[in-house]
Amino acid sequence: MEHREIYLDNNATTKPLPQVREEVYKILGDEFGNPSSAHSTGERARRHLERAREKVAALIGSSPARITFTSSGTESNNMAFYSSTRDKGKKCRVITTTVEHSSIRKMCSYLCINDVEIRLIKVGPNGIVDLDELRKTMNGNTSLVSVQWVNNETGVIQPVVEVGEMCLERGVPFHTDAAQAVGKIEMKAEDLPFDFLSFTGHKFHGPQGTGVIYARDKFLLVPIMFGGFQEEGFRPGTENLPGIVGLGKASELRKNDLTLLAAYMKELRDRFEAMVLDFVPGTMVNGDTKNRVCNTTNIMFGGIDGRRLVRELDGAGVRCSQSSACTNFEVSPSYVLCSMGLTESEAYSSIRFSFSVENTFDEVDKAVHLIRDICERLRV
Amino acid sequence: MEHREIYLDNNATTKPLPQVREEVYKILGDEFGNPSSAHSTGERARRHLERAREKVAALIGSSPARITFTSSGTESNNMAFYSSTRDKGKKCRVITTTVEHSSIRKMCSYLCINDVEIRLIKVGPNGIVDLDELRKTMNGNTSLVSVQWVNNETGVIQPVVEVGEMCLERGVPFHTDAAQAVGKIEMKAEDLPFDFLSFTGHKFHGPQGTGVIYARDKFLLVPIMFGGFQEEGFRPGTENLPGIVGLGKASELRKNDLTLLAAYMKELRDRFEAMVLDFVPGTMVNGDTKNRVCNTTNIMFGGIDGRRLVRELDGAGVRCSQSSACTNFEVSPSYVLCSMGLTESEAYSSIRFSFSVENTFDEVDKAVHLIRDICERLRV
Repeated sequence: MEHREIYLDNNATTKPLPQVREEVYKILGDEFGNPSSAHSTGERARRHLERAREKVAALIGSSPARITFTSSGTESNNMAFYSSTRDKGKKCRVITTTVEHSSIRKMCSYLCINDVEIRLIKVGPNGIVDLDELRKTMNGNTSLVSVQWVNNETGVIQPVVEVGEMCLERGVPFHTDAAQAVGKIEMKAEDLPFDFLSFTGHKFHGPQGTGVIYARDKFLLVPIMFGGFQEEGFRPGTENLPGIVGLGKASELRKNDLTLLAAYMKELRDRFEAMVLDFVPGTMVNGDTKNRVCNTTNIMFGGIDGRRLVRELDGAGVRCSQSSACTNFEVSPSYVLCSMGLTESEAYSSIRFSFSVENTFDEVDKAVHLIRDICERLRV
Repeated sequence: MEHREIYLDNNATTKPLPQVREEVYKILGDEFGNPSSAHSTGERARRHLERAREKVAALIGSSPARITFTSSGTESNNMAFYSSTRDKGKKCRVITTTVEHSSIRKMCSYLCINDVEIRLIKVGPNGIVDLDELRKTMNGNTSLVSVQWVNNETGVIQPVVEVGEMCLERGVPFHTDAAQAVGKIEMKAEDLPFDFLSFTGHKFHGPQGTGVIYARDKFLLVPIMFGGFQEEGFRPGTENLPGIVGLGKASELRKNDLTLLAAYMKELRDRFEAMVLDFVPGTMVNGDTKNRVCNTTNIMFGGIDGRRLVRELDGAGVRCSQSSACTNFEVSPSYVLCSMGLTESEAYSSIRFSFSVENTFDEVDKAVHLIRDICERLRV
């Protein structure tokens, strides 16, 4: 029997909203064009591009001029790191945390073999970065501090404003990976002490293949790629116009109702979490539950192999995951949870459930009952 | 009065075919998913991704394993250059031509300030690279030769097989920018002496935001970006699945009827060119007309300011351009034409017209009559 899919892995990717699909479809049709072309078709494409930029800017509380489009959150994160380290001479220091996304971790490994000094700051058992250690680690050579806004596995919110203010005092550039924050947390980026902020559209129902880097001063950016004058030369290559316009639409829809939508996702998540904790013995939530984004819960199922549980749930139509999609094929337990002090076996017992505005209370109830039944079976 | 658009700027970008639009639309809907997710939704996305890879590989005559998806032709070109120069030590030599796309030119400028020795080989008045000079320029330090397959402004076909064989003999990696060749020239990349071949989907009715790099040996590639295991780690970041699937569809459609479609584009182009040369005095074709791709003509309108002509044609509904879209906003004449020995004023008198399978003979006739009328008016 085929089960209706209950998709609770929205931190990996979301299904684009119907209105987003329609906008993309238009650009793939009669509204097509290359924004760099000097004729009317190009001009129409430029208008679409700039209108999308305005909508994306509005979502994060920025002026459009500070927005650069890229192809992914990964590219945006990489760009912030390149911008802060290239041509800075050897032995500059980059400070980040032990719980960042793989695009930050791997970039750090690359920089490390290129003589950039990388310092990783640990997090507490609640998943929150140690501010004292961070403060002590900043020295005169520090060319970048990068701390994620929201952890993709636990949903824990980092004290990015405090970190940004510490950086501002010391004149150190600050970057935040906001992939899991944008569209879930209200923000006015321009009023916050951020030099760079990265995100992607496909975490809030925009199309895959779109990324954004906000730069307080665009001239702090350096390009990763070289070519035409697209994005003022900071990000050359013909723009992904269909994707960008879809991202614009997703941003507009999210901006209009952010408070309501965040509250709805929180209701779904809280109901789900309370029911699981109630119905399934030996469960507990990983990470700080007070400082947490609206849509995510990471639950440890004591005594159960989470890999098995994820597989069984998948068979029953419920999609969830153990860690970030970008590390799913690593044969190791979640480094995020291990950084928080969980044992390997506790990390393997833990599962992330992430909700979207398209989930329903009915799905929550069904998923919880399936989880309860499967856990009972696995425990026998 | 609003004119129906006659789009003759298909080397800048093409309008996606209806079947491509439909495929993209599906992936933005119920077929969505993150290919890195370990559950069934992810598996479905992986299947879409790999099916698209097979179709793209088939179009260029490659095995799927040699195909890496990127976000643009620019990114693919850049990747070939990074792969051949990073960690090669100082003073390695890169050889390319004076008529390459801006993504190659600007990459060379970047490498040049980073101590890579760049040698540019000139072209003859016909636009074809000087093979003798190229041969003499290859030395023991040469880490890459890069020659475009088809020039984007003139459509001139470079002797890439001869160049590749020269490189093979000397053990020098060879890259060809095939953005304007793929989908217009039949090829079996695996049988050709190419180490790297780059292209993008939006030149043959695929979506913008997709690029491809073919690598004979994938382990010759180095990533530009760092992050997850997507594309075996060579190109991290969540894949642009809608774009890639659209590119797959466009590749399949083109592959199925390549001979016919290329012949049709050639008929359109040849008719257009013959009529313009016949009806408009003082016109001539720039570049070698024997070695030329099927869809492009670059015509010099003696005594006429091409910028004015492009503008007037645009007003009458005909879209064409003076040079590559990626350089349209440079206030200088085409460097491609100037490299071929045209004067500044001759270059400014020249216009590129590029056809697609969606153009019609009726459009050709209408465009020619408009061109004739406008030229008569501009000459008064």
